[in-house]
Amino acid sequence: MHGGDLDAARKLFPGAPEPFVDLSTGINPHPYPIPALPPEIFARLPEPASLVRLCSLAAKAYGAPSESNVVPASGTQSLMTLLARLPRPGRAMIVGPTYAEHARAASLAGHDVSIVPALDELGAADLAIVVNPNNPDGRVHALDDLLAVAARQRAHDGLLIVDEAFMDAGPRAMSLAGHVERGNVVVLRSFGKFFGLAGLRLSFALASRDIAARLNASLGPWPVSGPALAIGEAALNDTAWMEGARRALAEASQRLDGMLNAAGLEKIGGTSLFSLVRKADAQQVFERLGRAGVFVRRFAEEPRWLRFGLPGAEADWQRLTAAFRR
Amino acid sequence: MHGGDLDAARKLFPGAPEPFVDLSTGINPHPYPIPALPPEIFARLPEPASLVRLCSLAAKAYGAPSESNVVPASGTQSLMTLLARLPRPGRAMIVGPTYAEHARAASLAGHDVSIVPALDELGAADLAIVVNPNNPDGRVHALDDLLAVAARQRAHDGLLIVDEAFMDAGPRAMSLAGHVERGNVVVLRSFGKFFGLAGLRLSFALASRDIAARLNASLGPWPVSGPALAIGEAALNDTAWMEGARRALAEASQRLDGMLNAAGLEKIGGTSLFSLVRKADAQQVFERLGRAGVFVRRFAEEPRWLRFGLPGAEADWQRLTAAFRR
Repeated sequence: MHGGDLDAARKLFPGAPEPFVDLSTGINPHPYPIPALPPEIFARLPEPASLVRLCSLAAKAYGAPSESNVVPASGTQSLMTLLARLPRPGRAMIVGPTYAEHARAASLAGHDVSIVPALDELGAADLAIVVNPNNPDGRVHALDDLLAVAARQRAHDGLLIVDEAFMDAGPRAMSLAGHVERGNVVVLRSFGKFFGLAGLRLSFALASRDIAARLNASLGPWPVSGPALAIGEAALNDTAWMEGARRALAEASQRLDGMLNAAGLEKIGGTSLFSLVRKADAQQVFERLGRAGVFVRRFAEEPRWLRFGLPGAEADWQRLTAAFRR
Repeated sequence: MHGGDLDAARKLFPGAPEPFVDLSTGINPHPYPIPALPPEIFARLPEPASLVRLCSLAAKAYGAPSESNVVPASGTQSLMTLLARLPRPGRAMIVGPTYAEHARAASLAGHDVSIVPALDELGAADLAIVVNPNNPDGRVHALDDLLAVAARQRAHDGLLIVDEAFMDAGPRAMSLAGHVERGNVVVLRSFGKFFGLAGLRLSFALASRDIAARLNASLGPWPVSGPALAIGEAALNDTAWMEGARRALAEASQRLDGMLNAAGLEKIGGTSLFSLVRKADAQQVFERLGRAGVFVRRFAEEPRWLRFGLPGAEADWQRLTAAFRR
């Protein structure tokens, strides 16, 4: 099960007070303010010139060499499917445990998928996938180590995908975005998590001009919606908002960690958009919170783990505090 | 060049009066009224239950057997790419001339692409593609003829794609939507054209449960945006609006044809969303209209053709009339 499925939460906890406090995702709870959207944003086909502007702003915000290195798409998922099909079906190696959709996409593309625990075990994969910082444990891979993996992939013409979905509020100096032009590397950036607009479905791949051109050709002339273009343009140009959001997320993350610590949950990792904790009775904690209308993320394969996203409104923070005290 | 690119129009006709009257697309100029969109539509990940509701409404509106036969996607383009990759690379045969993106998607998927003039020349294609009614000439293929093609494709396990992008305002009794469950057939429906919301990026594939499940797996858990889900749900449930729109489009189409006829342009086809005309000096007509700020669609490969979409506001109708008189 993915995060954010409140319908599933309601089925699990039918008596819980509504509305649920949804902490099951890693999405900024204070979204970028949506600008006025004139009706033609919805009515007309998005124009090529506006797509170029969006790519140019994304290149600047993410640190890619130029707008020709940017591939805008309706969510990371559609990019994963395309990317997994760039190499011929072969060996896909994924550093994990991590976000499960990568293994699914690679497997659908016909690859033989293995999960390996560390970068130096990626070997000579046809498709190597690293999530940096990692979800759900927040593990950060150093830029030099990733550049070494990229060089090895280049040597045997394999592809390296680095999913930087949580990089905007993270250790941005570790981003590979500035190093894509040499080839064999694709960086994924998610717009919706940091900007708190996951429903908009907007993501970017950053790659060499060659790979970017191939991906753009596959996605066709209208890869993102009018609303995503308009809001993306405004948000990626708003450096003041981005700086403020980074500060606010860091503060909120500290507050969350204080509460988790007070509740006796051992933090084992995270980013400023979520914290991962471990506890022997994590399933009971999940149940107790759920019955109080606080929905967090659990992991079938790691029953002692829980992941907490950030509460937004002060009332949601209070409900989390109260739920822990029950 | 695709329709709707007003930036290109401005470059071609730098002195034209603004705003342009854009008749270069086949999109309903009177969009479905956009309902109020609460902020969480943009902020939250779309929920699985709301996707199921959308599929159920689409099945009903389009005449597919059930919601399990429906694949929602962010525009037809993303579906074309996936569909072209369902068969192994082989022979793709497309009834044309038609919308050029089908040939491009099939070619990118590795098929050897041929354009054939009629259904009975589709032969034993691995991938057969028919646009019904056809764009730009409006040619309608009869249901029985298409069912015969479907049976032939089924006999050698080839795939038939029927792109019904303009069917909502057309001869709906010819739709293959009700016949997809037997397999080897995928019907494409575009939401944005009939509902006048092309910027929303919402389309559907209708297919057997098996094929639909494979396509849905490829597209992943969030194939369409929150705004597309919310607006799509409201619109596909609004049969009164749909009936009214069909009447209004038929009337507008008659009015347009009267004007084209008065201007000495010979109508050679169309749907109620666009009319295709032929004239020896079509390029001069294109230039004359363009200089008057009326942008229509021309075709590189057919220089005597012009395609006219419907004007919306009365002022736009008047500007078209005036442009013809210059």
